[in-house]
Amino acid sequence: MTQSTTRPMIVAGVMSGTSADGINVAFVRIKAARTPRFNKRTRSNSEPSDLHHPPIELLAHTEYPYPSQVRCAILDAMNAERASVANLARLNVLLGELYANAVLKSQRRFRRVPDLIGCHGQTIYNQGDAQPFLGKKITTTWQTGEGAIIAARVGVPVVSDFRFADMANGGKGAPLVPYLDYRLFRHAKIGRIVQNIGGIANLTAIAAGADASDVFAFDTGPGNMVIDQVVETLIGKPFDRGGKIAASGHVIEHIVDSLLKRDFFRERPPKTAGREEFGREFVREFLRQRQGASKPDIIATATALTARSIADAVRRFVIKSTHHTSRNSFQEMLVSGGGVKNATLISMLSEALAPLGIQLRLTDEFGLPSQAKEAAAFALLAYETWHRRPSNVPSATGAKRPAILGKISYA
Amino acid sequence: MTQSTTRPMIVAGVMSGTSADGINVAFVRIKAARTPRFNKRTRSNSEPSDLHHPPIELLAHTEYPYPSQVRCAILDAMNAERASVANLARLNVLLGELYANAVLKSQRRFRRVPDLIGCHGQTIYNQGDAQPFLGKKITTTWQTGEGAIIAARVGVPVVSDFRFADMANGGKGAPLVPYLDYRLFRHAKIGRIVQNIGGIANLTAIAAGADASDVFAFDTGPGNMVIDQVVETLIGKPFDRGGKIAASGHVIEHIVDSLLKRDFFRERPPKTAGREEFGREFVREFLRQRQGASKPDIIATATALTARSIADAVRRFVIKSTHHTSRNSFQEMLVSGGGVKNATLISMLSEALAPLGIQLRLTDEFGLPSQAKEAAAFALLAYETWHRRPSNVPSATGAKRPAILGKISYA
Repeated sequence: MTQSTTRPMIVAGVMSGTSADGINVAFVRIKAARTPRFNKRTRSNSEPSDLHHPPIELLAHTEYPYPSQVRCAILDAMNAERASVANLARLNVLLGELYANAVLKSQRRFRRVPDLIGCHGQTIYNQGDAQPFLGKKITTTWQTGEGAIIAARVGVPVVSDFRFADMANGGKGAPLVPYLDYRLFRHAKIGRIVQNIGGIANLTAIAAGADASDVFAFDTGPGNMVIDQVVETLIGKPFDRGGKIAASGHVIEHIVDSLLKRDFFRERPPKTAGREEFGREFVREFLRQRQGASKPDIIATATALTARSIADAVRRFVIKSTHHTSRNSFQEMLVSGGGVKNATLISMLSEALAPLGIQLRLTDEFGLPSQAKEAAAFALLAYETWHRRPSNVPSATGAKRPAILGKISYA
Repeated sequence: MTQSTTRPMIVAGVMSGTSADGINVAFVRIKAARTPRFNKRTRSNSEPSDLHHPPIELLAHTEYPYPSQVRCAILDAMNAERASVANLARLNVLLGELYANAVLKSQRRFRRVPDLIGCHGQTIYNQGDAQPFLGKKITTTWQTGEGAIIAARVGVPVVSDFRFADMANGGKGAPLVPYLDYRLFRHAKIGRIVQNIGGIANLTAIAAGADASDVFAFDTGPGNMVIDQVVETLIGKPFDRGGKIAASGHVIEHIVDSLLKRDFFRERPPKTAGREEFGREFVREFLRQRQGASKPDIIATATALTARSIADAVRRFVIKSTHHTSRNSFQEMLVSGGGVKNATLISMLSEALAPLGIQLRLTDEFGLPSQAKEAAAFALLAYETWHRRPSNVPSATGAKRPAILGKISYA
């Protein structure tokens, strides 16, 4: 088999998130035909298959928690100002061994053997904005977990270290998942917004018949982060299960309206949000506006903030930015992430989207559960790299051009 | 061009040594035909070309010192018990930029554009022996200098991070240069020992008509390390220029004889030496045996120790270990490294080899100056990896099997 052949492959994707909980493994089958085109002049007439025959099929997925001492070592490396150079070097190899074991165990469990592995690694440092260092302006990132170890143990090639190639081309090295959204959800006739609602909410906008270079993505603002903090502060629970408390309250509209006038929401994409924007400080200010409202009203208002900020972002930056083209605008929003479990949030979002002519659907109906999504994304990115094709989405990362992501270690 | 084609390529090798002085760049042209065989059963009848048509041709080489603040940052990372995680992440990118600049400058100077780059990177940590870490036995190493940055800047693929694949297969990840020795100096009819005399002296033994798997390599003991320290202690100069002082003295034979009975010299290869074996402590003991001898006599004796220990290693471990085969034994020693400049050392070595039927030659006459050798080696290793061929020498590194070294970053 040469790399230029594009036969279907089974690819294992291995992901470890910044929470450093453990290792997600997804085995996916990737079919050959649908190569995205980055160059509009060479655009093919063939359209990607519809949702009943997606080019990426999730075969199985699972997760393995890190041993607690490994988790501690990772958190130490992430949070300590200074760390032992020797231990960082050892952690790289140790994680390589753990990732290899995770794939080998999954192989036995799924009774499938992958042809290729894409391993994201464990991020222990990330700096997406250029900062001066010894006379140069540097952006950098660090995913540890040695690809060569995985390749040797499992006996198949490994693609690792995905983010640098995008950074080297002027991008932030993130987000990389929009490429999976594009490949999974692009539709010839339907414009789709893929909306993830985690702590922070982010969207990927895929116009009908889009090229990868047409796709764009950005953070819309709070996802569950503000709701959860408000619920915890007011009633001491970690979250509003099913959105029941919010359902029993009334949204205080003028608070939502005034919050949506904040800089973050007005700022044009690309933009990213985090605890700096919607953490404790934001919640403290938010609660100051309470003025005797009931707890359910406040929780309903926090919930409405997430729903309305998403719809607002769509209205301001998604529909608007593409209405000058001849293409259809956006008809569907596909929602994933923990926020999906909050029925009140989803119903608010659905209502807010209705005037825009956008129908809400859940990504789960497309066969890719939220927990498997990131691991599946790195399987797909590895597949593209193996075939020497770019897979960053420059409009999402800010890169100046498409880049072939990651490094290949042969077995 | 696919990776399975083996047309001639111009490959840039980029090396930074542990002294952290700077960046060595070598451009080499590598011809296609002579693929080494690791599997004896499939050994080809075609023999590598002779020394007038070596498969690897050095086109040009040069070096660039690190800016002093970069050198400081590297030495800090190497020597500090703990280091800033952020700065380690930045150093990786910064060195990638510097390596890219070094190749781009060389391109303009040499008026050649490489097809591929092999970059060793800067070692900041190395642990070739397994040690327990969080419940696993780990060997590890760390070469920094981001390959993806170099690939993006120069616009050609880069192979980096060579040592892990060998380690993952049970080796120490070093030495990797014996593969170059094998490819350059292997001869169908002549058994050759490639002897490098740096601070430590090491040899690569390549029997006539050897396969890569027949090659073996080990440290023979002191190179210039003991001589230089003795000269510095006795007369305050950094080294014995041209071996003139040694030439004016007489070797105290019984001291050499007794030193050669030490454990290190009797130990069977593979073995490695360093300051632990032949540093200050050794020299202090050596000088204690002086008993009124003149300074030139002592320096001559130190010089004889290097020469005799090399010849002894050849007699004990090289000739012996292969005389049971039907092959010719070894007829030539090709010497390189700083020790070559010590005429007394070379003449002593030549004399010590004569009874073994081994003739001494200098590698410089083969067109590869010592300063370019390591950089050229990583160009060759990159070329092999690009063609998905292994290039470790298991008998030199201790690996259980051949391994394809390094990771490929596409431009």
